[in-house]
Amino acid sequence: MNTQELIKKYRDLQFKASCYQLALTTIDYDSKTIAPKKGSNYRNPRIAFLSGEHFSLITGQEMIDVLEALQQAEGVDELTRKEVEYQLRDINKIRYIPVDEYVKHQQLELDSSLAWEKAKNAKDYSIFEPWLKKMIESKKKLLTYRKDYGTKPDYDFLLDDYEPGMNMDKYDKFFNAVKEGLIPVIQKIQQAKQINTDFMYKNYPIEDQKKVTQMLIDYIGYDLEAGAVAESEHPFSNLYSKYDNRVTTHYHEDNFTSNIFSIIHEVGHATYTAQVKEELEDTYFFTSITSGMHESQSRLMENYLGRSEAFWKPNFSKLIELFPEQLKDVTLEDFVKAINAAGPSFIRINADELTYPLHIVIRYEIEKGLFDGSISVDNLDKVWNQKYQEYLNITPSDDAEGILQDIHWSSGSIGYFPTYALGSAYAAQFMHQMRKDIDVDEALATNRFDLIKDWLRTHIHENVGMYLPEQQMILATNEPFNPQYYIDYLTEKYTKLYQL
Amino acid sequence: MNTQELIKKYRDLQFKASCYQLALTTIDYDSKTIAPKKGSNYRNPRIAFLSGEHFSLITGQEMIDVLEALQQAEGVDELTRKEVEYQLRDINKIRYIPVDEYVKHQQLELDSSLAWEKAKNAKDYSIFEPWLKKMIESKKKLLTYRKDYGTKPDYDFLLDDYEPGMNMDKYDKFFNAVKEGLIPVIQKIQQAKQINTDFMYKNYPIEDQKKVTQMLIDYIGYDLEAGAVAESEHPFSNLYSKYDNRVTTHYHEDNFTSNIFSIIHEVGHATYTAQVKEELEDTYFFTSITSGMHESQSRLMENYLGRSEAFWKPNFSKLIELFPEQLKDVTLEDFVKAINAAGPSFIRINADELTYPLHIVIRYEIEKGLFDGSISVDNLDKVWNQKYQEYLNITPSDDAEGILQDIHWSSGSIGYFPTYALGSAYAAQFMHQMRKDIDVDEALATNRFDLIKDWLRTHIHENVGMYLPEQQMILATNEPFNPQYYIDYLTEKYTKLYQL
Repeated sequence: MNTQELIKKYRDLQFKASCYQLALTTIDYDSKTIAPKKGSNYRNPRIAFLSGEHFSLITGQEMIDVLEALQQAEGVDELTRKEVEYQLRDINKIRYIPVDEYVKHQQLELDSSLAWEKAKNAKDYSIFEPWLKKMIESKKKLLTYRKDYGTKPDYDFLLDDYEPGMNMDKYDKFFNAVKEGLIPVIQKIQQAKQINTDFMYKNYPIEDQKKVTQMLIDYIGYDLEAGAVAESEHPFSNLYSKYDNRVTTHYHEDNFTSNIFSIIHEVGHATYTAQVKEELEDTYFFTSITSGMHESQSRLMENYLGRSEAFWKPNFSKLIELFPEQLKDVTLEDFVKAINAAGPSFIRINADELTYPLHIVIRYEIEKGLFDGSISVDNLDKVWNQKYQEYLNITPSDDAEGILQDIHWSSGSIGYFPTYALGSAYAAQFMHQMRKDIDVDEALATNRFDLIKDWLRTHIHENVGMYLPEQQMILATNEPFNPQYYIDYLTEKYTKLYQL
Repeated sequence: MNTQELIKKYRDLQFKASCYQLALTTIDYDSKTIAPKKGSNYRNPRIAFLSGEHFSLITGQEMIDVLEALQQAEGVDELTRKEVEYQLRDINKIRYIPVDEYVKHQQLELDSSLAWEKAKNAKDYSIFEPWLKKMIESKKKLLTYRKDYGTKPDYDFLLDDYEPGMNMDKYDKFFNAVKEGLIPVIQKIQQAKQINTDFMYKNYPIEDQKKVTQMLIDYIGYDLEAGAVAESEHPFSNLYSKYDNRVTTHYHEDNFTSNIFSIIHEVGHATYTAQVKEELEDTYFFTSITSGMHESQSRLMENYLGRSEAFWKPNFSKLIELFPEQLKDVTLEDFVKAINAAGPSFIRINADELTYPLHIVIRYEIEKGLFDGSISVDNLDKVWNQKYQEYLNITPSDDAEGILQDIHWSSGSIGYFPTYALGSAYAAQFMHQMRKDIDVDEALATNRFDLIKDWLRTHIHENVGMYLPEQQMILATNEPFNPQYYIDYLTEKYTKLYQL
């Protein structure tokens, strides 16, 4: 085959894979939003089959042959060359794993997730402990099949898998800065005068909360002809294609800001893939956005914009109209203070912007310890609780609100947590640059969210996952990733907010 | 391969096909309920690919080989033998069509549907006329590739495709009975005192209509853990598996019975496949329910039960509670009269129970004429209008409310319309038997809808599409299809209602 034929073959395989991806994404969205519970016995084995077909297409021998031929071929355009490079990089992580080992690990993930669920319900880490042990061993075993196994510590492979370019050296620097910079701030806040947040937890009828959702959509300019809002147990976004990026939310009658920040967060994800360059929609780059980079966009929108006073200037009066009783005597200033209130808490996903990264530090340090042998799975619940006491000055009362709160480890996601904190830190650096380039607060206050989306599009979104995070940072901000922006932002914000 | 291996191979192929079917059904439901408009350019070619894969699995050479081997094999159980027979019957209809002819016809369906849409918007049949001509020619051409081509008139093939066992002889008898029996009734009603229906078209807020939906679901016992209700432009049901049968509705603020009868109708379809025998769920029979038989179940529930006084006895007071203003001074008797009011109208899908079959007669006679050459596509709009004048005593004012109202012909569905009327007639015969076996009105009036569903399950539903309609009728009612039950039911009902 000549180069053109090879490229055509590659695009054909990509197209086929994208058909299965569309099916799987649709079934996933459907099953989390509307599909009836009892249908899952019929649905699940069929999802497994379609996933298998998809997996075979993107990692199978036919794909490998085309990719390797393209790697050697002459006259391949830059874009395709890079796609080939990324896709081979990802395939190489798994292609030498014997099939039976691979299947065994998949089964372990399922069994281990069930054990985790059982353990969480029983609030008893000891039920999950043997499974976590097996999981760590299996993850290590799988690494031994990589061609470059042994060239760096095991945990570095996992960190790099989730965020290409990252390793323990870099994360250590980042998380040390987080600990040194933020723990003192958190401690000072615990001594400071607390912010009143009572009004946030009054009764807010869901029908009216839906009007808030519409208000946010209109304000941000989320195009409902190229997106959708549904309800699900946990909010998420599903990204199909440039013109189909959907979000979900969950309405809590007694916590009306939960929906607000879920919507803004998920629309942050959806806006990323809605703003890609037309010609990149059908490429491998559409799905190669890193976890950290994706999270940077959702958190930028949720925290850096959505929790700012400027964001609420044109919107707060509408909230008052919708909830005159619940927000009686609440000023814009009170509201903005309340949605930024910070303080130690047990559950990561409910944590505020300031304490959130400490939840991640704890998980990172444990994962690192589990891989270098300095921490054992035995009594890991004790280690967990000690770290919460040390960094956040609180001790979980049981394992469900302690070590068993997250599903990640049971499903084999080890090395993933750090990207959550990284996303927030990327966002701080992006915001720093954005504020140099445009008057963000003015744009927010005058209903010009489009100016912000333009900046994000031209500096980040339109590239999708074409650049590694380190390149993307330089492209958008003219310097490599620097966590200091993040520490400075949080320190400054919270010093002012709590008058520390 | 021995018989057991053949059967295993057959089940494997069926399972694979069902995976694609699940994907396609989910994407279809999604695209009609929540998927954003602008996503269709990305979605459509991928739907086409997945459809192609599905089609290859159920009609491809691998399947044909297995089916033909099973046909010859010894020791095949009765169930499998019948599945093989049905599936081969369906494959034989298309397997000898040359691929390029097949593709050309698929394209014609797409182009012709677009032309129809354009024509309908312009209210101008002449735009659609050349496409209808091509469509008839293409349908005829495709028939010539059947092995049994020439053994019966062309139109008989199409009739049998949609309702196995049916042909012009049988339909002529049926429709002659309809015309002779019902046209005089319709004419008398036009002279009679009309029923007041004004209150049905007041303003009924959609939020309250949703409570009516819930009331109906509770009353009928439609299990929302094995189903779902969504909103779409046109109501439909999507049947995934025994434990996942979903419906949609459309709320009209100024027509609150539209939602009521959409829900009852679609739940009628959904109840069919929810009540299949567990072991038939994964068989070819799940999808081989005929159009007429499926429609019999939706219409039985919508018209024969849902429009009866007994149905509303335990439910009407709840309507009054929800709409005290709109239903002021309306009695149960008034309400039941209004939802049964009949009179000639132009649009088939909005027609009442009595005039509906005349809309079908007109389409049937035209299709028949187009195939035997006694009617030409030239000036077909005139023929259409003449028939409306003759049978319903009204003449459409333009082609949009005349010959262009239905999409069916443009998408190649010729021979399909008759099954709609057939479904209603099957339902009459089923009801006649059901009323012999159980006290239907008592069950309805005392909240025992389960007794009715039990009857439907044991007499019809649990068999899915295992029996041909003629066998199914005998099994459930101890006699072959007899349209007289239908004519008698309508005549009696409307004579009484309008005191003719």
